[in-house]
Amino acid sequence: MFELIDMGERARKAAASLGKLGVTEKNRGLLAAADALLANTEKILQANREDMETGRNRGMHKGLLDRLKLNEERIVSMAEGLRQIASLEDPVGEVLSMKKRPNGLIIGEKRVPLGVIGIIYESRPNVTADAFGLCFKTGNAVILKGGSDALRSNMAIAGILRDALSSYGLPADAVQLLESTDRETARQLMRMDGYIDVLIPRGGAGLIRTVVENSTVPVIETGTGNCHVFVDESADIDMAVDIILNAKTQRIGVCNACESLLIHEKVSDRLWPVLSKRLREKQVEIRGDETVCGLVPEAVKATEEDWGREYLDYILSAKTVGSVEEAIAHINRYNTKHSESIVTKDYANAQKFLDEVDAAAVYVNASTRFTDGFEFGFGAEIGISTQKLHARGPMGLKALTTTKYIIYGNGQIRP
Amino acid sequence: MFELIDMGERARKAAASLGKLGVTEKNRGLLAAADALLANTEKILQANREDMETGRNRGMHKGLLDRLKLNEERIVSMAEGLRQIASLEDPVGEVLSMKKRPNGLIIGEKRVPLGVIGIIYESRPNVTADAFGLCFKTGNAVILKGGSDALRSNMAIAGILRDALSSYGLPADAVQLLESTDRETARQLMRMDGYIDVLIPRGGAGLIRTVVENSTVPVIETGTGNCHVFVDESADIDMAVDIILNAKTQRIGVCNACESLLIHEKVSDRLWPVLSKRLREKQVEIRGDETVCGLVPEAVKATEEDWGREYLDYILSAKTVGSVEEAIAHINRYNTKHSESIVTKDYANAQKFLDEVDAAAVYVNASTRFTDGFEFGFGAEIGISTQKLHARGPMGLKALTTTKYIIYGNGQIRP
Repeated sequence: MFELIDMGERARKAAASLGKLGVTEKNRGLLAAADALLANTEKILQANREDMETGRNRGMHKGLLDRLKLNEERIVSMAEGLRQIASLEDPVGEVLSMKKRPNGLIIGEKRVPLGVIGIIYESRPNVTADAFGLCFKTGNAVILKGGSDALRSNMAIAGILRDALSSYGLPADAVQLLESTDRETARQLMRMDGYIDVLIPRGGAGLIRTVVENSTVPVIETGTGNCHVFVDESADIDMAVDIILNAKTQRIGVCNACESLLIHEKVSDRLWPVLSKRLREKQVEIRGDETVCGLVPEAVKATEEDWGREYLDYILSAKTVGSVEEAIAHINRYNTKHSESIVTKDYANAQKFLDEVDAAAVYVNASTRFTDGFEFGFGAEIGISTQKLHARGPMGLKALTTTKYIIYGNGQIRP
Repeated sequence: MFELIDMGERARKAAASLGKLGVTEKNRGLLAAADALLANTEKILQANREDMETGRNRGMHKGLLDRLKLNEERIVSMAEGLRQIASLEDPVGEVLSMKKRPNGLIIGEKRVPLGVIGIIYESRPNVTADAFGLCFKTGNAVILKGGSDALRSNMAIAGILRDALSSYGLPADAVQLLESTDRETARQLMRMDGYIDVLIPRGGAGLIRTVVENSTVPVIETGTGNCHVFVDESADIDMAVDIILNAKTQRIGVCNACESLLIHEKVSDRLWPVLSKRLREKQVEIRGDETVCGLVPEAVKATEEDWGREYLDYILSAKTVGSVEEAIAHINRYNTKHSESIVTKDYANAQKFLDEVDAAAVYVNASTRFTDGFEFGFGAEIGISTQKLHARGPMGLKALTTTKYIIYGNGQIRP
C-alpha cells in the first residue's frame, strides 16, 4: 500500500503542475515523447522480446502473443499516435457558459482536467503510450497498471516517456506505471479515492466486472458489446446483407461488432437465402430460432443464453420478430447498451428505433462498426463507455475533463 | 432480494414509458401530484404524527425531530416545489450537436433520461416528493429508500404520488419507495446495477461513504463541504468580514457554509480586531494557529485535525498564511472539493486562485453560501456533487440526463 500512496501523492503533485501548462508546452512534451520512443526502439524491442519469451514459456495463446508483440512498425505507430494527439485541439480551459445573476455574481463553467486518472489494462503494450498521450494532452496525471505479461515492455515504454518529459523540465510523474501486477495491488488501486479521480478499465468483461465490483474510485465502464442489427419489413435486402456482413465480419474481436440479428418475419424468406450464402463464405456459424433453422440448413438451434452472448468470434445469433416493437423490446432486454442498428425504409420505424432503443449509439441503415472515436471525428479514443454517467459512447479528449464553476463577485453575501 | 428485483423490473418498465412522454404529459403528472398532496394533507400529517410519536419514544434528538416534522405549511411547500419543477424547461430531447461525416453518416448527440435513479436519504420526508418531481420531469423512474424514522410519512407521500399518476394514466411505478429500511436491503439496492443507472445518496458523510464503499451502481457523491475563505493581503477588510460572517453564520448546518479561514499574515493585525468582535456577537468559537491565538484572546489552539473538519456548527478554524500560493496549497490539501473563496483586490491573485484551487465552485469576493442550484439559476437542485465525473457542483435537471448518439445512414459500411 505504501508504494501506491506514494504514487498517488506524486500523481496529485504532477497533476497540479500539468493543470497550469499551456497547450504549447503540452504539445512539446508529446512530440518529445514521440521522438524518444523512436530513438529507443531497440530498447523497447529488447524488453518486448523478453516478455514474448516468458509468454511462450508459459504457453501463452497465439492470439495473445500477437497482441503482446511489438515490432518497428508498431513503435512507429505508437509515436505517430502521440503526434496525432498533439495535433488535436486542447479542450481544457474553455468556458462553456458565463452568465450574470440578478445579484451581480458572474458565474462561468470552465472545462478543467479531471486530475489523476487510473487505467487498468491487459496485454497490449501500446496502451501505455496511448493512454499517457490522451491524459497528458488534457492535463491529467495517469497511473497505469498493465498486465504481468507485458510488464517489461510497459516498463521500457513508461521509462522512456518519463525521461522525455524530464528532459524538457516537465513532470515525469505525469505517467507512472505500477510495477506490481498482482491482484492485491490492483484491488488497492481501486480503493485509492482521494488520490485517483477516475478509473478506466480497458480489457475483457471479467476485468471490467472486477473493477466495478471492487472500486471505490468512480469508474467508467468500457467495452463489452452485444450489438444487434434489426432488419425491418421494408428493408433494402442488399443493403441489409452488406451491413450485416460488415458488422459481423469486418473485424470480429471488437466491441462494436454485431453479435445478434433480428429479422422481421415478413422479410425472412427473401433475406435468408442471400444472407446465409454470404455468411457461409465467411464461415460464420448461425445460431437461430426455429424459423431461422427452417430456412438455413446449417443453422444450429440458439439457446436462451445465446441472446446475451458477446461471441467475439465467427458466430451470430439470429431471431425472427413480428414487429419493430418486438425487436426493440428484445434489444433493450439483452443488449449491453453499446451499438444497435435498424435497416429500414420506413420513416416512423426508423424514428421509433432511434428513440426507444437504449444504447450509446443507435443507427439507421449503417454498420455498428462505426462506433469509434476516430470514425466519430474525435481524433482520438480512450475507450467506448457503455455506462450512462459522465460519458457515453466513444470517449475522446473531452471525456477526460470535468468542469468547475468560477464565480466573480464584488462582495455578494447571501440574504 | 426478490422485492428489489421486482421493483427494479417495474422501474425499468416505467422508465421505458416515461422516456416516450412529452413535456405536456409530464407536467400534467407533476401538477396532479401537487394537487393530490394538498388534497391528502390530513393523511400525510396523520402518518407523520405516528413517525414523530415513535421518534419521541425512541428518544430521537430535537434537531432530528424537527427535520422529520411536517405541518400544513411544509406540505404546501412540497406541492409548490412540484409546481415549480413543472414550470422548468425540459432538458430531454435536445440534440446538442449534429454533424455530417465525410462518409455521409449524420451523427447527432441527443439528451435522454438516465433511466432508473436510486436515491438513498435520511430523515426529511419532503425529499420523497422533491426527488420524485426532479426524476419525473426528466423522464426517469425513481426508487427511493428513506430512513426508518420517516417510513410512515414517506409511505403516505409516495402512495399519494402513485395514485395521482395512475389516475392520469401515467405509470405509478415512476416512483417506488422501499418499505424495508434495514441495512441489508440498502446494501442490496447498492448492487442493483443492470436495474439502476445511478445512485444518489443524500445525507451525512457516513451514509455517503457507505454507498461509495458498497455500490456497484455508479454513484454521484454529494454533500460534504469543508469550505474556506482566504483573505488576501490586499483584501477590503469590511468586505472580508461581511463575507466571512455570511459564509459561517447565515446557516450553519449546510455544506456550503465556511468551516475554515486562511488569513494573509500582512492583514492579520487589521482584520482580527474587527472580525473577532463580529464572530463573538454570533458566539462563534475560533480554533486558530499561534498567530490567531495571539491576536484573539478567546481563540483556542487548533489541532491538525481541525483543518479537515466540517463542523456544521458555530466553530471556525483559522490559519495564517504567507502567500496566495500557501493558501491554495492548504486548501487543495484539506478541502472536500466543494466551495472556496478568495477576498482580494489583486487581479493576478484572483485569477491564480480561480485557476489553481481544485473545487466545484471557486469564488472571488463572494460568500461560499451561493453554491446552490437555485442561486445558480437552475430552478431546482437534486444535490451538490463533490465528485468530478458526470456533474460537478449544484445539480439541476440536466444532471439527471445522459446522451445517446443517433446516427442516420444510407447503407454505410466500414471499409
